[in-house]
Amino acid sequence: MNYKNFKRKIYLEDKPRAQAREEILAAHSLTPEKEEIATSTSLGRVTAEPIFARVSMPHYHASAMDGIAVVAESTYQAHEQNPLRLKRGEEFSYVDTGNAIPSPFNAVIMIEHVDVIDEDTIEIIEPATPWQHIRPIGEDVVQEEMLFPQGHILRPADLGVLLAGQQTVIPVTKKPVVTIIPTGNELVDADAAELAPGKIIEFNGSVFAGFIQDWGGEPVLHPIVKDEPEKIKEVLLEAAETSDIIVINAGSSAGSKDYTVHIIGEIGEVFTHGVAARPGKPVILGKINGKIVVGVPGYPVSAYLALEWFVRPLICKYLQIPEPKRQTVTVKLGRRIVSSMGAEDFVRMNIGYVNGQFVANPLTRAAGVTMSYVRADGMLIVPTNIIGYEQGDLAEVELLRPLEEIKNAIVFCGSHDLTIDLLSSRLKRVRTDMKIVSSHVGSMAGIMAIRKGEAHVAGIHLLDPSTKEYNLSYVSKFLAGQDVILYPFLKRKQGWILPKGNPLGIETAADIARVHANYVNRQKGAGTRILFDLLLEEGCLTPDDITGYDREMFSHLAVAAEVNGDAHGAGLGIYPAAKAMDLDFVPVADEEYDLLMTRSFYESESGRLLISLIQSADFIAQVEKIGGYQVIENAEPECLLKEV
Amino acid sequence: MNYKNFKRKIYLEDKPRAQAREEILAAHSLTPEKEEIATSTSLGRVTAEPIFARVSMPHYHASAMDGIAVVAESTYQAHEQNPLRLKRGEEFSYVDTGNAIPSPFNAVIMIEHVDVIDEDTIEIIEPATPWQHIRPIGEDVVQEEMLFPQGHILRPADLGVLLAGQQTVIPVTKKPVVTIIPTGNELVDADAAELAPGKIIEFNGSVFAGFIQDWGGEPVLHPIVKDEPEKIKEVLLEAAETSDIIVINAGSSAGSKDYTVHIIGEIGEVFTHGVAARPGKPVILGKINGKIVVGVPGYPVSAYLALEWFVRPLICKYLQIPEPKRQTVTVKLGRRIVSSMGAEDFVRMNIGYVNGQFVANPLTRAAGVTMSYVRADGMLIVPTNIIGYEQGDLAEVELLRPLEEIKNAIVFCGSHDLTIDLLSSRLKRVRTDMKIVSSHVGSMAGIMAIRKGEAHVAGIHLLDPSTKEYNLSYVSKFLAGQDVILYPFLKRKQGWILPKGNPLGIETAADIARVHANYVNRQKGAGTRILFDLLLEEGCLTPDDITGYDREMFSHLAVAAEVNGDAHGAGLGIYPAAKAMDLDFVPVADEEYDLLMTRSFYESESGRLLISLIQSADFIAQVEKIGGYQVIENAEPECLLKEV
Repeated sequence: MNYKNFKRKIYLEDKPRAQAREEILAAHSLTPEKEEIATSTSLGRVTAEPIFARVSMPHYHASAMDGIAVVAESTYQAHEQNPLRLKRGEEFSYVDTGNAIPSPFNAVIMIEHVDVIDEDTIEIIEPATPWQHIRPIGEDVVQEEMLFPQGHILRPADLGVLLAGQQTVIPVTKKPVVTIIPTGNELVDADAAELAPGKIIEFNGSVFAGFIQDWGGEPVLHPIVKDEPEKIKEVLLEAAETSDIIVINAGSSAGSKDYTVHIIGEIGEVFTHGVAARPGKPVILGKINGKIVVGVPGYPVSAYLALEWFVRPLICKYLQIPEPKRQTVTVKLGRRIVSSMGAEDFVRMNIGYVNGQFVANPLTRAAGVTMSYVRADGMLIVPTNIIGYEQGDLAEVELLRPLEEIKNAIVFCGSHDLTIDLLSSRLKRVRTDMKIVSSHVGSMAGIMAIRKGEAHVAGIHLLDPSTKEYNLSYVSKFLAGQDVILYPFLKRKQGWILPKGNPLGIETAADIARVHANYVNRQKGAGTRILFDLLLEEGCLTPDDITGYDREMFSHLAVAAEVNGDAHGAGLGIYPAAKAMDLDFVPVADEEYDLLMTRSFYESESGRLLISLIQSADFIAQVEKIGGYQVIENAEPECLLKEV
Repeated sequence: MNYKNFKRKIYLEDKPRAQAREEILAAHSLTPEKEEIATSTSLGRVTAEPIFARVSMPHYHASAMDGIAVVAESTYQAHEQNPLRLKRGEEFSYVDTGNAIPSPFNAVIMIEHVDVIDEDTIEIIEPATPWQHIRPIGEDVVQEEMLFPQGHILRPADLGVLLAGQQTVIPVTKKPVVTIIPTGNELVDADAAELAPGKIIEFNGSVFAGFIQDWGGEPVLHPIVKDEPEKIKEVLLEAAETSDIIVINAGSSAGSKDYTVHIIGEIGEVFTHGVAARPGKPVILGKINGKIVVGVPGYPVSAYLALEWFVRPLICKYLQIPEPKRQTVTVKLGRRIVSSMGAEDFVRMNIGYVNGQFVANPLTRAAGVTMSYVRADGMLIVPTNIIGYEQGDLAEVELLRPLEEIKNAIVFCGSHDLTIDLLSSRLKRVRTDMKIVSSHVGSMAGIMAIRKGEAHVAGIHLLDPSTKEYNLSYVSKFLAGQDVILYPFLKRKQGWILPKGNPLGIETAADIARVHANYVNRQKGAGTRILFDLLLEEGCLTPDDITGYDREMFSHLAVAAEVNGDAHGAGLGIYPAAKAMDLDFVPVADEEYDLLMTRSFYESESGRLLISLIQSADFIAQVEKIGGYQVIENAEPECLLKEV
């Protein structure tokens, strides 16, 4: 076994997450420091100790009304049959809301109940009771009253009572300094002029800084550190001096994942290397010179979860605040979810609100796909002792977005088309509380989602090989008896997406087979794949004739991106995808991309709004300007149950 | 009718809130401006337009595993019975996760499945399939993919995909500038050296600024403006030049409430003066030189509500984001809530979670009591056409705090004692997610709250005139048959709270009657009032003999604050209240202040924690250091059903 191989055989623990957390919370021996700051700048800060009012508010007897101040006892004779006249100065005084009550007065009569006789005389017909309409001293805040305990997160109105209590400078807990150290030879800054293969933009550091800021910490983002053990050691020791918590993002170049744990062990101690949770398993928890260090995995989603599991509790403990908990919602699972025994699984979920029910589907579980975290509406946490859920099961999901936002979203699925994004943008412009949430699952899966009540709209473009017609035969077959609408949306050009200049001279499927181009296919059930299969059939070819037939991408842009990197590449897709990456495009078919929707959605306010946006002159112009599209104007929807 | 009187007769509209809102949203004609900022500083900002990825991530074929890159087709012969040896360089290359796949390789074999023979030779026993363990280009982000639409509020992970897509500078919508103008001759800054009667600390401006910042606006807090129409006019016109929205906080000195609306009408137009909602009714909505101006009432709670009703929607519209909605919860109402027909009522509520149910009680509805907003857990909005709710009704309440915080709170009611705040602080220190929420309703109301299942603990000190014993006879009478615990908490000194030096020479209730001191009483059902009544009875006196008998305060500190302002004042209360305000104290009684709790709470984890804190040496020392207290050590709880 050579060195290279040896280094890789790192034993990862399967420590329960809760245990790992308790261990570092116990090991975190820091005493929170406090600082005195101006109250006016304290929004969102955390009180370091109980704060008491220095003065009362009001600090004097204040009128609660506009009116006159009187001595109540001197008004007892006033009556409708016996109006009482009072002289200004001695017997009454005009007061406005908030004014101090001049001595010797002890009651206020509302101006509405006062008859003005002349400049200095008024008349009343009802007596006043002592202290009526007078705000007692301290009605709002009483001197020496505890306004807030320690560990209180200050909200806007809290600033008001602090200032009212004349607490203009208050003790708050310092924000714990969290130093973030990105390591890895492969990392480059986002504004790097050129991105060589193998180089990765360092973005995790900025994300970590964002999380830490949101959680109340003070992030310090260290510049990228190369994978050199001595350098890493030096930076860690320095960070242990200047920070309360250290986060180190392990590089992924040869061996660096191992450096980190060895270095921490060498200059400090390692409590944990590996927790029973996915993604995020290969986390390192340790301590250097009394400061907790969290080594997070390189894959973004693993890293974000590890940060939330271990750095957030430390920050909250430092600030003496509770860890915020996410709102949860019960969802019906649209797909089966498999999990392994012995480890928690954190599954990013899309949630849709369809037919009065929350339906959720898992996004990709690849830990490297940041977008799966960004797009997720919620997180399903499958406990250690459960091997997953069946389709249709109900499960509790933690929300990553406000429930309202999920409720108002139009759930779009099926085939991907770039115009759907434009439509979503347009929808959001007229109704800021609405949006289209789309998942690119292919036309067939779109039909199934409508059948299962998991989506409002599905984009489909399925060519029937026998009739050479689009969509209707599929819908009739799979949605027989269901009340759905097939709305003709647009015609679009499908064609070969090829490297610039079409170096292999591809015009047909037969050409692709002949020149052994690296074909980039779409997933099963995608309309584009069905079209390709038909083209193969027409050319008397089989999948075996095509290099890369099994290489599946989930969108037109993804196909184009693959072709873009390969002079021998070829794919099938829509014109704008080729155009976006400046690739060649050889048209193959004009296809009908229709929108399938339930009638209840079609007739709902959201459905009508969607159609009106599609038919707006603005939208049509915008789409056709892209090229390769023709929006069907004044489209006539097809209803399977024939009642539109 | 003289001028002064005339000015006061201002007609306020009762415009529906929704209508007033729609009118200003329609009148708000500003086009949001955008600015380009560094992505790394964009947390919480709002995208001004759709943002597309400039590069793919990964932008090359990346290994998804640590292992070796091979040409899949060349491994097809590998088998357990037929191990295949590959030479480094030509036939395989070591790759780590994230590394670029060198040409001509098209598959990765995990290092765990590789046998290392020597430095340059490996052996495999299973074939690879093409593209296995290789991340496709754009697996995470595809070039030209829409990352976010306009109107998206950027979260930490969003920064990651933006940077990954090499969007280092992005267009965000400028924060709308909201100028806040506090007006009023009565206003002084919070750090004013001396607070003369009639002067009020200007704190609303800081609160407004906090709200506006939280909502995504850019607050500009103008210095206090005197009640001079010409000056106000000048400031408003200037603000209309420099801001997107103007908030003017009307002063409350004579006539200034009227200035504002007249001035806005003179230099611009007034849409609304008064909405059918309380508090907050006297709001002014208008426009000056195209800029919306919102005139908010002087009372804090009215002002905060008006701001939320009218300024927040404007900010959200400007930013093209939906207005956030608060989570709601269904509560059982502990008290009757009266509302008037024809206007919405916004009632601040305390919510407790007792015996598995959310129980809510209204806080004071006085618009001037900021603390009622600060202390509120939720807001009950009584619609226009409802005249209120009966005790025991279920109602939906908007939450002002996280539900979790409410669920974890120990609901304390009954009599007020200063040590309860200390206990709460101590509890929060050991369990940051817990706290004591206390409402000062008096001992009798505390007993009733326990009876109705609205509180966990009640502090009581009720002297039985017949037996001269504390508490037990009351509990036996009102909670007969209920499983409650009476826990002896502390003995404390009650006495006369008197101005420094006791100028009137008060020693007894008879003295108070004789010298006609301004007595400050407590509310009905308060233990201290019952004690005072007993003292009157013992002195053969009646309430009529006491000046101020009907003047009711709700806490010891409030009584002390009133006495503090009045050389003729006198009150009855506990020693630390007198001490806090440096007043004289003449002891009258040693009373027993006990904690009444349900057995289920007493035996719960929270209950046990509370008792252990009370009995801790630290707490006892802290309380006794205040003076006037003696904590009962090793207290023996009394159980009515005799089973402790």
